[in-house]
Amino acid sequence: MRILGIDPGLATMGWGVIESRGDRHRLVQYGALTTAAGQPMPQRLRAIYIGVNQLMDTFAPDEVAFEELFFSKNVTTGMAVSAARGVALVAVVQRTEELYEYTPMQIKQAVTGQGKADKHQVQMMVKALLGMAEIARPDDAADALAVAITHAHSRGARHMYKIQ
Amino acid sequence: MRILGIDPGLATMGWGVIESRGDRHRLVQYGALTTAAGQPMPQRLRAIYIGVNQLMDTFAPDEVAFEELFFSKNVTTGMAVSAARGVALVAVVQRTEELYEYTPMQIKQAVTGQGKADKHQVQMMVKALLGMAEIARPDDAADALAVAITHAHSRGARHMYKIQ
Repeated sequence: MRILGIDPGLATMGWGVIESRGDRHRLVQYGALTTAAGQPMPQRLRAIYIGVNQLMDTFAPDEVAFEELFFSKNVTTGMAVSAARGVALVAVVQRTEELYEYTPMQIKQAVTGQGKADKHQVQMMVKALLGMAEIARPDDAADALAVAITHAHSRGARHMYKIQ
Repeated sequence: MRILGIDPGLATMGWGVIESRGDRHRLVQYGALTTAAGQPMPQRLRAIYIGVNQLMDTFAPDEVAFEELFFSKNVTTGMAVSAARGVALVAVVQRTEELYEYTPMQIKQAVTGQGKADKHQVQMMVKALLGMAEIARPDDAADALAVAITHAHSRGARHMYKIQ
């Protein structure tokens, strides 16, 4: 099964694609969609919409897993990230209704076995699980791979994580 | 010039189309896109995306004016409305880059001449300015017509209200 993981953001939206079979995962590709802070919001959101559509076209994932928004204290940032996530959801749901979401703690738990792991531990485990030569960069792409792995591990309890 | 006004929301997104020439405005049509609370978020956002695309197809507005989000104290609602607004922005910007935004106070001022007018006063003025037989329903549609009129009145200062 092919899984696309997404770490939503407006300036940087991390993504990672894995092929998962049982307990074995293979890295397909990862990267980040970026938009320039100087551009108007509608154009930035359009770039994200086009970018996520291209990911769906290119990788044709069976299921897509999002990292849940950590609601920042900065309302303006929170609204911008919510908008970017909304646009990504629309781009995805036009191809598959298999959309899932995991909290940062669930991701840490699934990837490292402990919910309080730090960022570096998560990144090292992603690297090890996918047999990568180096840690994925930027961090948003590593986070996207981590949520894809988390989803791969959620067999049997997926209905709990479906985006409602 | 044809103007589409939008009052963004997830459950109800009001819209109104006017034809504006100088100080004279003619009502074209108004209504509301609605999504059911029981549906999952991606499907609701998809419905809004499709709905706004249909409005753009049907009415081919030259310019589109949004009512600025009043950020609610309810974070979950604020995120949902931000997502809906983001999706609407993408649907619009694919046809025109003429996107504008006005605060509730600017709208009250432009439509009634006073920034502290109440909802009913705004609705009555919208009815009068457009020569309507009745007040527009639902409220979201009346609000959308009000923001379209506000935009029509903003000639000469439009650059100030362009969505950034």
